[in-house]
This record gives sequence, structure tokens and C-alpha cells, in this order.
Amino acid sequence: MAPCTPRLIVPIDLKKKPWEQDPPLHNRWHPSIPTVSEVRVGELFRIEMVDWTGGEIQDNLSAMDIKSIDLNTVHYLSGPIRVVDMEGVPAKPGDLLAVEICNLGPLPGDEWGYTGTFDRENGGGFLTDHFPCATKAIWYFEGIYAYSPQIPGVRFPGLTHPGIIGTAPSMELLNIWNKRETQLEENGLESFKLCEVLHSRPLANLPTPRGCILGKIKEGTPEWETVASEAARTIPGRENGGNCDIKNLSRGSKVYLPVFVEGANLSTGDMHFSQGDGEVSFCGAIEMSGFLELKCEIIRNGMKEYLTPMGPTPLHVNPIFEIGPMEPRFSEWLVFEGISVDESGKQHYLDATVAYKRAVLNAIDYLSKFGYSKEQMYLLLSCCPCEGRISGIVDSPNAVATLAIPTDIFDQDIRPKVSKVPSGPRLVRKPDVLKCSYDGNLPITKNPSGAA
Amino acid sequence: MAPCTPRLIVPIDLKKKPWEQDPPLHNRWHPSIPTVSEVRVGELFRIEMVDWTGGEIQDNLSAMDIKSIDLNTVHYLSGPIRVVDMEGVPAKPGDLLAVEICNLGPLPGDEWGYTGTFDRENGGGFLTDHFPCATKAIWYFEGIYAYSPQIPGVRFPGLTHPGIIGTAPSMELLNIWNKRETQLEENGLESFKLCEVLHSRPLANLPTPRGCILGKIKEGTPEWETVASEAARTIPGRENGGNCDIKNLSRGSKVYLPVFVEGANLSTGDMHFSQGDGEVSFCGAIEMSGFLELKCEIIRNGMKEYLTPMGPTPLHVNPIFEIGPMEPRFSEWLVFEGISVDESGKQHYLDATVAYKRAVLNAIDYLSKFGYSKEQMYLLLSCCPCEGRISGIVDSPNAVATLAIPTDIFDQDIRPKVSKVPSGPRLVRKPDVLKCSYDGNLPITKNPSGAA
Amino acid sequence: MAPCTPRLIVPIDLKKKPWEQDPPLHNRWHPSIPTVSEVRVGELFRIEMVDWTGGEIQDNLSAMDIKSIDLNTVHYLSGPIRVVDMEGVPAKPGDLLAVEICNLGPLPGDEWGYTGTFDRENGGGFLTDHFPCATKAIWYFEGIYAYSPQIPGVRFPGLTHPGIIGTAPSMELLNIWNKRETQLEENGLESFKLCEVLHSRPLANLPTPRGCILGKIKEGTPEWETVASEAARTIPGRENGGNCDIKNLSRGSKVYLPVFVEGANLSTGDMHFSQGDGEVSFCGAIEMSGFLELKCEIIRNGMKEYLTPMGPTPLHVNPIFEIGPMEPRFSEWLVFEGISVDESGKQHYLDATVAYKRAVLNAIDYLSKFGYSKEQMYLLLSCCPCEGRISGIVDSPNAVATLAIPTDIFDQDIRPKVSKVPSGPRLVRKPDVLKCSYDGNLPITKNPSGAA
Amino acid sequence: MAPCTPRLIVPIDLKKKPWEQDPPLHNRWHPSIPTVSEVRVGELFRIEMVDWTGGEIQDNLSAMDIKSIDLNTVHYLSGPIRVVDMEGVPAKPGDLLAVEICNLGPLPGDEWGYTGTFDRENGGGFLTDHFPCATKAIWYFEGIYAYSPQIPGVRFPGLTHPGIIGTAPSMELLNIWNKRETQLEENGLESFKLCEVLHSRPLANLPTPRGCILGKIKEGTPEWETVASEAARTIPGRENGGNCDIKNLSRGSKVYLPVFVEGANLSTGDMHFSQGDGEVSFCGAIEMSGFLELKCEIIRNGMKEYLTPMGPTPLHVNPIFEIGPMEPRFSEWLVFEGISVDESGKQHYLDATVAYKRAVLNAIDYLSKFGYSKEQMYLLLSCCPCEGRISGIVDSPNAVATLAIPTDIFDQDIRPKVSKVPSGPRLVRKPDVLKCSYDGNLPITKNPSGAA
Repeated sequence: MAPCTPRLIVPIDLKKKPWEQDPPLHNRWHPSIPTVSEVRVGELFRIEMVDWTGGEIQDNLSAMDIKSIDLNTVHYLSGPIRVVDMEGVPAKPGDLLAVEICNLGPLPGDEWGYTGTFDRENGGGFLTDHFPCATKAIWYFEGIYAYSPQIPGVRFPGLTHPGIIGTAPSMELLNIWNKRETQLEENGLESFKLCEVLHSRPLANLPTPRGCILGKIKEGTPEWETVASEAARTIPGRENGGNCDIKNLSRGSKVYLPVFVEGANLSTGDMHFSQGDGEVSFCGAIEMSGFLELKCEIIRNGMKEYLTPMGPTPLHVNPIFEIGPMEPRFSEWLVFEGISVDESGKQHYLDATVAYKRAVLNAIDYLSKFGYSKEQMYLLLSCCPCEGRISGIVDSPNAVATLAIPTDIFDQDIRPKVSKVPSGPRLVRKPDVLKCSYDGNLPITKNPSGAA
Repeated sequence: MAPCTPRLIVPIDLKKKPWEQDPPLHNRWHPSIPTVSEVRVGELFRIEMVDWTGGEIQDNLSAMDIKSIDLNTVHYLSGPIRVVDMEGVPAKPGDLLAVEICNLGPLPGDEWGYTGTFDRENGGGFLTDHFPCATKAIWYFEGIYAYSPQIPGVRFPGLTHPGIIGTAPSMELLNIWNKRETQLEENGLESFKLCEVLHSRPLANLPTPRGCILGKIKEGTPEWETVASEAARTIPGRENGGNCDIKNLSRGSKVYLPVFVEGANLSTGDMHFSQGDGEVSFCGAIEMSGFLELKCEIIRNGMKEYLTPMGPTPLHVNPIFEIGPMEPRFSEWLVFEGISVDESGKQHYLDATVAYKRAVLNAIDYLSKFGYSKEQMYLLLSCCPCEGRISGIVDSPNAVATLAIPTDIFDQDIRPKVSKVPSGPRLVRKPDVLKCSYDGNLPITKNPSGAA
Repeated sequence: MAPCTPRLIVPIDLKKKPWEQDPPLHNRWHPSIPTVSEVRVGELFRIEMVDWTGGEIQDNLSAMDIKSIDLNTVHYLSGPIRVVDMEGVPAKPGDLLAVEICNLGPLPGDEWGYTGTFDRENGGGFLTDHFPCATKAIWYFEGIYAYSPQIPGVRFPGLTHPGIIGTAPSMELLNIWNKRETQLEENGLESFKLCEVLHSRPLANLPTPRGCILGKIKEGTPEWETVASEAARTIPGRENGGNCDIKNLSRGSKVYLPVFVEGANLSTGDMHFSQGDGEVSFCGAIEMSGFLELKCEIIRNGMKEYLTPMGPTPLHVNPIFEIGPMEPRFSEWLVFEGISVDESGKQHYLDATVAYKRAVLNAIDYLSKFGYSKEQMYLLLSCCPCEGRISGIVDSPNAVATLAIPTDIFDQDIRPKVSKVPSGPRLVRKPDVLKCSYDGNLPITKNPSGAA
Repeated sequence: MAPCTPRLIVPIDLKKKPWEQDPPLHNRWHPSIPTVSEVRVGELFRIEMVDWTGGEIQDNLSAMDIKSIDLNTVHYLSGPIRVVDMEGVPAKPGDLLAVEICNLGPLPGDEWGYTGTFDRENGGGFLTDHFPCATKAIWYFEGIYAYSPQIPGVRFPGLTHPGIIGTAPSMELLNIWNKRETQLEENGLESFKLCEVLHSRPLANLPTPRGCILGKIKEGTPEWETVASEAARTIPGRENGGNCDIKNLSRGSKVYLPVFVEGANLSTGDMHFSQGDGEVSFCGAIEMSGFLELKCEIIRNGMKEYLTPMGPTPLHVNPIFEIGPMEPRFSEWLVFEGISVDESGKQHYLDATVAYKRAVLNAIDYLSKFGYSKEQMYLLLSCCPCEGRISGIVDSPNAVATLAIPTDIFDQDIRPKVSKVPSGPRLVRKPDVLKCSYDGNLPITKNPSGAA
């Protein structure tokens, strides 16, 4: 075997359920989840992973699996991995763990993925007031390219990356998380008023034993009960990295993760074939199973050396990322702008979230003039290599956010034309996203579509 | 003269004050500001412009001009320009005006620029609670490159662009602006609570005759009084384009602007030699005087054809931009992340503004470990070609924003190192930004630095 | 199995010799070599391949295997593959076969490669008069990156590609090849005079049964004898594609190959982890075993539709290539120039070969000032992603060729410095290429190093 | 005036003839041509220049000016410039002169250019046996873009660069040039046989007083007679740089030129709005007048430090170039291949010139299937940003050269299509290049078109 052949430390058997894998997976962050393997610095190793739902969403022609999913079970992660130096001394709290992403891809035999939006009553997405139904598109891969039968006329190269990569939190950090997220939940009513356009989504996802998988900790044991009630959900990115969804974190990238527990306890999962900045539909990347080939280094005392806490404790830090040199060239981008005025015409103060929402809505509306449904474009902008930028954040009262779309991913010229073009849809494309009906109570907001 | 020699329609005399230029400049948006020139579609024309402050900020070694500036006078714009088709028929409300940016640059003889932060009592910037003083850095240009005596060890190619380009609003649109921005001001107290970390900055900049320049409308006339009291300030980007600060809007780009008044009445100004996404320090690009060579097309009924109103009226639209093929290649980027937890440790709900603020603060703190002051890095991240991304906007409760910095702009390797490096500043660089003392009442926020 | 899982049609068993593989390999071009598999258009399939020498060169610390190799055995190819359309009708002479390269890489468990130069008496390389010895460097892969213990301080991302991809020639085309190459051999003396700097290398590699492997044709049979005596060697690229060594032919590329025999009979091999334009050292890419995942389309009558014969028959055509969007970004390149004046000072007339030779020699000499041996740089410029350009081909009498090297592949700044630097080698790096002594008769040319 | 405003040291008056300019121009290389200005290291200065023919070719609808041009007068250069260090000490033989190209462009008021091929009896071009007539296309500029009424449907961004930049040769170097080029001329008959496909072009352009312009040396003086009879023509690139035609030498690039005479005596000219690698039609870039803004540094003893002589004397060196970070992004390239078999079917030995010729012919033939004449495509491939590569130079007997064309420059999709397309020209475009009849004796070669 060549010295650079990666050692497989976490295999996945695609025929098994997430909780049947060996070594076992986990879907929470907690310092007590036991490590499943150990690697030395400099060693090339391979981790395989299920898709974030552990196979719940399938390659079929119905969105019912999207509609009925229990989000307490996501994301299934592979690990934790204990990292030691050449002398066998583990990474220690205060170190930085440098993880190089050497290679990655879909699992052989499983070269497909999906993009979806959840039902508004089950979490929704960034634009759930506009798109309350569960929808799904299937993507197939041809090497670097993906295409979807549900969104014809589009094909693009993916910048494949892990959506989640992180170290285990210490108990102290975990307590900080649980405290601040609980406070948000409890102050929900106030937040509700502020963020009315987003209000039907859960404010935070607090610890719950429901759907909890804790690796080698056996369900039903007292330890399981304790850990399950404390362990942080994997939805948000936090100080330990986690679900940061950085779309450019592909081959040749490096992540510098703070170490909070001995051994670092690295976990990863949620592989994306491709994602747009923001991952707006929530189940928004091209989600898939996959593999990562990684190499770790330990930067001793690197947290103190390189990171500056930003908050009440030394733990309030964030990882650093180094993006590699490989990415697709696109010669031209069409850019949609949003300002922080919402759909009802209300002015918000330098609110980049509102501005980005409007930029995405503008892009969806524009592209739907080229023969697509809005649902198709919502899914596409979630997963294609589009860039979401904060263009202006200081020009009171308007934040300006932009969404840039590479025009080459379409098989037609989507730029505005000076010469006369027929009005109405340019092209009727029959296929559409897979869709479930929405049975919920839609009209919570007074102005869902902005019609006062 | 070659058929492609641009016709100079707005010259600037650098020895004159903004209000002495011929044709006259203006610093407000209003449909009644008379046009100063007319161009035909397809015609290449040249507009020159003063820097946004009209020469108030000078190439000297003091930041006093930054500290004492009256922001009621900005931004000085060139125009408005009336656009007609080949038959002489003007652009009409409902059309789209396609403006191609063929060429641009600094004004010959004036090849320098500046970046600054305003005093907290005079508008401040994105991070004014951390950086309350007025500061300034001077930049000199060597072709595509800029360097600053105040920030040594850094040199980068600029993506030069106009910060402001827009059409005149109709009275109806102007009324919408004034109404919604007044409402924000009036509800300021409520907003104050929400956005406490940003609270010392003006919420909106409402119309005021103070400092107002209205082109050919003579000051003191009844018309001037009326228009001055209604005309919108130029600070925020809005439906007409305006101050959108899109850093990639350089040579070969196109802007598709909605037309609200007959003739379109195109104005432009606020030339930037280079800008980082977000322009975080507010006076944050490399601000300069400059010229634009433009070419216009009219897309008849283009608003209906291509734009979808998002709000109570058909006027709630946004421009579209097409980014050209020319930009600097950078092989490597270092990426800093922020989540929507503020400096006091408080959790915000999917707030991209808070997340981006933390990403910028993380980057400043990190870079200051390489021999720079934090003020130097705040200015640098405002104006260098860094990218501000909304990476995740759906993973409740944390928005994830990232700031990506091209490592090649530094003359040292700024990446974290695995091998032992001495702690403390890597390199003491003596020069620093030009700085004024802060005399105001700093501790308005309870937790300016996050220390509860 | 996902519909996009490639069907493996040519597996390689790394424990077996090239002539033991099943299906069998071949190392000649001939229409009578039987196909080993059939694929339909649109189908994704996988071909594995040995390295070009079939495992003769090994991962050890001696260059003896390079020195003693029998070049009659190269290149071992996988195939031929018969291509049929959806109705089962095979590709026909006159069609174009469009082959998309969907994915590729090293064979799992065999993630290493080598670069070498042959002994001058055994074929040499582009600069064999300067570098007559056999040398070798081993490269290890970490995902997209390669590094070599023999050339420290260098690491670069590879643009992996197949060196050889081609269709089978018809007998008519094969006869044309054999005739023109035989004529070249026979006129060798004349050519000798012209190309004296290159003269020790074989002029052509004519058919020979020695070392011949013909797939399913059993050795010793009359058919074998006939085919072996006619079949074209694989060294040069020709009308059927073959050894074109286009370094950018990586993921997402497409090759449009002329079809000369029914079924097209596609063969491929000679996988390169990375190669510089020109592949100057001859065994010059990072040679490795590997796999290709391909998809074919048939363009009926495409030869007539798209290709124009350039020569006495309709068969004098060349393939067309479409380069994909994925490649590493390099921000800066150092460019070395050569003109068509040779090392003896003699002027050649618009000779791009002489000009390129001098550009490569200039680059080697320059880089060797940074602590490297010239042999290290000769191998490096063969395999790193450098670009060899024909910059000027019309300015009599000098052709100008350039070699552009991305500066980022070195761990030191290799640009000339204005400030005082110590003369002599900047840095002594102890490791060097693996090298054999040269025992041959070196001084054939009167002016090997240009010293008259 | 800002400290970075370039000092204009060589102005051009477009209303004057080349020999009327002040300071005067020159069109030969000789150490005795007096310098016209002096610059200090670090100083930003501006040089303006006429187009290479000094205004002979005009913006009109006839190619007669191309047909009748006297090539003894080209190229008109601006300079020489004497370079001194901060202490006033001039650059000295053995130094390297580092010249940074800070800015460049067309001369204001003269924003157009031309591409042409010369009549076969007057120098011809790379493909003169195929295209013996004088032809011309006019290009107009819109900022970074160029378009031609004679080649509709094409528009591309230019990488503007000076075709010629070089230092003055010493007498010793000049003597080497004249000797070796005279030898080539004298051995012309032999060369004729070898290079039969190129044979009608001049082998070398030896010194001649005809058309000679020597700057401040007054015509008719004894000095003029002497210098004119010795001074090197400017057509070929040589050891001093000169006509290197490196298409990427645009904004932000650096040239490291050897210094052969005190003061370096830098000259430059032959501005190109855009050029393809090889500049195949000879008058092949988009030729224009223009300006350069430069900055020089002196690397003392840099020739010894960085360059290695390759030939009988220490003067046999070549410049080094550093390509800047700014260039257009193209997402897709179509690549045409040529091998070293000529149009008559004859095999040449590793001849990159023959291979590149065939690649260019293949590309022309292919593109002419999309509604273009071959003359249009010959001119286009001379001046558009296409890349000419030496892909394989070791695979005896075939050199493989490739020509890569960015597909985005066409307004139609020029890729081969799998689906049925009508045969014959896709689109009849009426406009064509401007063309003169060819009156010469065409059939000199036995096989001009390869028909044996």
C-alpha cells in the first residue's frame, strides 16, 4: 500500500440504518460522546458518512419523505476522532486543530443527492412564508457535474464540501450554548415581533432526547439519559465549527478548529455535492452521503496564539478557514440586489438578513420568467454555486445584500435583452419540483406577500 | 476622432469646489433636479466626478478633516443625464436603462485616495463601538495597485467601481422613501433596544436643506426650498440603485436600472479605487475622484418584462447587475467566520448583520497579531478586495457570515503556522493610521466590549 | 445502485502484470485488436489503467528501473471499447466520438507516481544533451496535492488527466502513419543535420513485435505476427488522438475523436497526476495508475460536419478538445523566454522547438539558483502545472516561446529581488533526484553546452 | 499634483508624422541612439507611442495601405530612456532593469486598432501560403472590449500590452546579432528546403538605411550613415527583450531586462489592444497607438545573480517576465490540436512550428463552418485572447501543439453538437475582412494546399 493511501477509520455500510453503523454515528455535540478512532498528526485518513438524514430522503418521485421527516434526528455525524501528536500526546484544550481536506466525494455506488424545502410546520426555510410546502429535487452526478430531472436545462460543476466539521465542546462551552439558546427561546415573543417575516420557524433547537443518537453510549443507560438531555443539537454553527456550511470548503482547504476537550474529538458529516451561499431552502445543498480524506496537525496553544475571544469568556471564539486553489471558473455573473426594506414596504435598520431575503426573492422572480417555476428556482439557488454577499452594511438605513449567479449554469442566455423579446414565459418547461400540499395554517403574517 | 472616443459630457475642474463645477453637481435624489446633458443609446460618453466629499478630505497627515466633516453635503453626484433612443425618444417610466461600464479610473493628476472612519458622534461606522475615533489612511496608486504609507506591508490590485449609480426617483417613489425612513426614525426607540450594539449611528438620514446642492436649481429660490426639503439623501441604496457599493462593478459590467422619470435622469459618483464587501468603516472604500466611460441602452417596458415588484406598489423593485469578466486572480483566501452571537454573549436569531460584525472583528483581531494595529486592519478590511459572504442563513438560531481575505495582499505569510512561532506581535511596524482623539461619551452601551 | 454509478468495464488488479490483466491490455494501435467491452451512448462507465510502464517503475530509492526500461513495451492501454448508440448501432467511420471525462484519479491503494528522465542511450528527453543520465523522483499524493521527497519545498495541486485517449486507426490510416514515419527514419541523416541538438533521440518508433501486447490476440498466432509487425507504436500523438498529453484535459473536459473503424474502438491509458506543457523530460508527467469515468456520445457524420482534412486524404484530421471549468487559480506566474537561437549561438528560422528548448533551459538555470539541482528543476518543469506558450511565431527569424511557472508552488519567493541578496545558492537543500551514472558516449554534438 | 501622477516624458502628437514627433522616435536597435529622457528608480512615468507603423494604416475601408506598406520603417519606438538610481548613478551593464507596467491603454482620442495580413510578396504571415492576400480588419474599443465591423458576432476583452519593450544592445551584442542573422540569410537556400511551407517569407531582416529613423541622430550625417548600416531591425525578439509579443504582459506585470549599456536605454512601442499567442497573421495583434505608465528598479549585478548565459558569451541571455494578477476569466475553451505532419502529409521530427501551424489551420477551418470566412478567422486568431501551447515536445516523431480559444467571445455556441444540425454554413454573415487581390506568383511551393 502506498504511504499516501488513506486509512479508513469510519466506514459506512449503505445498506444499514444510521444507528446500525459500526463504528456508531452520533447526532449531538457533547464532550462525553466517546471517540471511535484515533489518528496521528500527518496521517492521511478516510471518514465515510451518511447523508445528513441518514437515508430518510430517497431517490424517488415523491416529496412525502421530506414532508414527514423528524428533524430531531439530524445531522448524523461520523466520529468523534481523537487526534494525537507524533509522540502520542493528544490535542489539548487551548490548541488549534488544523484539518486539511485532501479529498472528498460521494460514496461509490451512491452518486446522487437531493435538495428540498421543509413544510412550514416542520421548520420551513429562509423563504417559508412564500414557499410553505415541502418540495424535493433529485440530483444525479456525472463527475464534477450535477443535473436534476426536476430542474431541466441546468447543469453545473459542484464545489463539494462537508457542511459540518467541528470539535467537541467542553461542558463549560456546552453550558454557554444551552443558556443563550434557551434565553432566545424564552424571549421568543419579543423576537417574534421583530422578525415577523421569519416567525414560523423554530427560534432555537434545544436539547431533546427525542431522536438522539450518542455513538457508543448505549440508549437507555443513565449516562445516555444525562447526555441526551444536555447535548447540543447540530443545526447551528457555533464556536466549535459545526454546521458552518461554507460552500468553498473543498479539496485543498484547511480548517483551524479550536480544541475544547482532550483529543479534540473531531466529528464531521452533512456532505454537500454543491451549495449556494446561505443554503436558503434549509435542506438546501445537494445533500448526499460521502467520504472525506483528511490530515490533521496540532498547533499547540494555537487558540491563544491566533484567536481572540469575543465575548465574556475565552471560549467565545470561531474557527478559521483556508480556502484551496481549486474552483470552477465562471466568466459571467448576474447579480440581484436586496435592500433592508421588507415585502410589506417596511424599512429595517441595516438588517442584512432582510436585505438578503429580498435579493433571493428578486432572483427567484427574475429567473422564473425563463420558463421555470419559483419552486424550481428556490431549490436551485440553494444548491448551485451562487454567491451571497454583504455588499453594503453601513449606509443607514439600508443594508445592501447581493446574490450573484453564474450565467453559465443555464442552457439559455438569462441576461436581460435590449432587443424585443416576447413577454410572458420564454419557454415552458414541463418538469417541476416534487411537491406536497401544504395543510397548515398559512396566513400567520399579515402581509405574507407584501399586499397590505 | 475615432468613433469610439467617448464624448465628455461632465468635466470636473479639480481646482474648483463642488458647487463651482460646470455643469453643476448635486447631492440629493429628486425628480425635479434638471438634467445637465443628453446622450443617445449606443453612444460612448464620459462623466467625471469629484470624490464623495467633494475634496473635503485631503492628502495630508491629519485626520481632522475626517473628524469635522459635515455629512449633510455628501455624496456629490455628476448628472443627471437624460437618455434618449436613436429616434430621440427619451427613456420612459417602466423602461429599464442598461448602463455598460466601459472604462473608469482616477482623474489624471489626482491618483490618490483615502479610507477613513468617522467619529462616533458623527456617524461612526459598522464597528463604531469598538473604534469611536476618526481615523484616516492615504492610498497612492501605481496603475492597478494601491499602497498606503499608513498601512505598510500591504499592496493590492483594485477593482475600481462607482459606489453610486442610479436613476432619479419619481415623486411617488420619493414619497415612499421619505415615509418609510421617517417611520424608522420615529420608531427609533424601539429599534434602539434591538440593535443596541449599533445604536449610536443615525437610524436614517432624512431630507434636510442643510448642505443641499441641487444642480441647476438656484439656491434661495422657492423651487430650491421645496426640492431641498423633499429630496432624498444619497447615503442608502434604494430602488433606483444609488449607493449600492457593489465592489465588483468594474470594467465590462452592466447595470440594469429601473426608469422612474422621463429621460431616466442618470446620476453617478462616489468612485472607489477598491472596496471590500460591506465597506465596513463607512468611509471605507479607497475614496477618490474619477471618471466613468459609459454606454446606455433602453429596454422598453423592461421593468414589467424583467423585474417583479416586491412590496405594496409596482415601484418596489431593485436593479440587476452583470459583473464583467475582468478581476484579479488570488490563489488563496483566509476566511473568518462570525455567528449571530454578539460580543456580550447574547444569542440573536439568524441575524446576518450581527454575524458579519463578529466575522469582521475576528479578522481584525487575528490580523493585528501580525504587527498591525486594529485600526489599520479595520481600514484595510474596508477597502481591500475581501469578500463578505452570507454562508448560512437557515440554521436556527445562528446565521453564519464569513469574511474571506486574499492572503497575497500581505508581504508576509499570514496563515496560522504549525511550527513553533514566537508569541506576541510578529513584527512591529511603526507607521499607523492617522487618528483623532475621541471626545464623546463612549459608554452608551452597557457592554461595548462584551464585558458584562 | 444509483443511476449515475459508473459501470466498471476494465478493472485493474495491481498485483498482476500488465499481460495478466483481465480483460487484457494492449500497447499498440491497430484496427484488428479486438474490443474488450461495449458501452452505450450516455452511459457512465469506468476504466482502470496501469501506469504507462505497467508497473516497471517502482516506489523505491533507485533510478535503475528508469535506466533499464525497455521502451518497446509502453504504453499499456485499457480497451478498446466499442461504442454503440441507443439502438445498438455502432459508431461508424466518419462519425465523431464525443468522450466526456466525468471523473478520474489514482487507483485506490496506489496513490503515488513518478517522474523521470531516460538515459540518453535509451531515448533521453527534450534536453538529453544537457541531462544524459537516468533520473527519478517519487511523488506522493494528498488529495489534489503532490509532493516529492526528492524535490523538497515544492507542493502543487495536480490537474489530473489521461495522457493517451484515442480511437483505433483504420488500415488505411495505419498505412499512412507507417509510411511517413518510415520515410522520416530513412531520411534520418538529413534530419540529423537539421536538428543536431536533438539528434541522439530516436527519430521515430516504428512497428516492432518486440514487447508487443495485443489484447485478446494470442501471442504466437499468425494473426499476432501480422498485427505486431504492422501496429503503430503509442509514443506519438496522431490523427486518432493518442498520446496528446494535453495537461488541462481533466474533470469536465470533452474530447471529440474521429472514428475510423466501426465501434470507434476507444482506448486510453498513461494517466498523469499532473504535467507541465511539453512534458519535457519525456517520462515527464507524474506517471501513475488510475481510473477514468467516461460518458460517450456519437456525432453522426461529425468528421465531415466539423473537421477539415489537412493533407492528401480525408483521414488527415485531428481531434478537438473542450477544456472544463475546473482548474487551480494561481495569482502570479514567472515567465521565461526562449528565442530560436541555439546554445551554440546559431540562428534558426522561426523554430519554436529550439525556442522552447531555450526557454526551458533558462527556467532550469534560474530556479537552480534557489537551492535546487538542475536535475530537480528539469523533472519539476516536466510535471508541475507550468504553461508552455508559443508567444511569437512570425517575427523572422526568431520564434519566441515562453514557459510560465506559477510561483505559488514553491515555499520560498522565487522572484528576482531588488534589495541586496547574497550571491550563490540561496538555500542548500540536501535531497536530490535519484540518479544513475551515464555510461554512454556523450560528446556526439560538437557543442553540447554551447561552448564552441 | 498627486505623488503618483506619472510624469509624461514621451508625448505623442497624433497629428504629426513619426519623424516629426518631439522627442523623436526611432525604429532600430543601436547603442549610439541618444536617450531622450532620464528617469529615477521608483518614479512613475508615462510614455506615449504611435502604432507600430506610425499611422500608415488607417481607419478606412480599404486594405491597400496594408498591401503597400514599406516594412523597413517599422516598428516606431519611443525612447530610449536613461534610468538612474536614487543617487543618480545610471544602470550599468550587468544590472537587471525591473520595469513594472503600472497602467496602459489606447491614446485618448484614438481608441481604435487594426489587424491585418501582409501580401505574400511583402512579408506575408505564418500561413501566407494559404492566405497570400493583404487583408485588414478595423477594431473599435468600448473600454476593455473590442469589436470589428469586419468580423461581426465577436466581442472580447483585451489584455492590452506593449509588443516591444527592451534595452539597447551593446556593440558586442549587436555584432553577434548581425553575424548570426547574416549567416541565416546566406544559408537561405538550405533553410529553404527545410522550411518549404514557410519559404516565401524573408529569412531575416538585416540592417538597412532604408526607412531608418534614429531619434536625435540627424539623417545625412556621417554618424547616421554608420549607425543606420549597423542598427538591428526591430522585427525579432532577442536577448534585449524587444519584440517578444507576450500577450499577458498587461497591467501589474514586470519585465526584468538585462542591461547592456550605461543607463539601460529603455525603448518601447508596438502597443497591442489584444493579441493571441503567436500573433499568427504577423500584423496580427490589434495594433494601436497608446500609452504606458512605468516604474523602474535597478537590480545591481542582476544579470550574474539571476540569469545564466546560454551560448558562447555572457550576453546570450533572455529577459524574465512576471505576469500580473489581472486577466479575464473564461469558463470554457475549445482546443485545436496540431501534430508535426505538414499539409502534404510529410512527417517532421518534433517540429513545434509545423505542429502549431496545423493547429491554427484546424481552428480556422473549424470556425469557418459557423458562418465566417477563413480570412476572418485567421485575423481573429491572431488577435483574440487565444492560447498557443506546446503540449507535447518529446513524443517522437510528433510535436503536439494546441490552440485554445475561449468560447465566450462568440455570440453563438461554437461547440460541436450531438443533436442533428444542418450541414453547411450555420449562418451567413455578410461582412468580411477588407481584402486586396494577390498579384504575385503564388505557386512557388509544389504543395501549397497539400494536394500532392
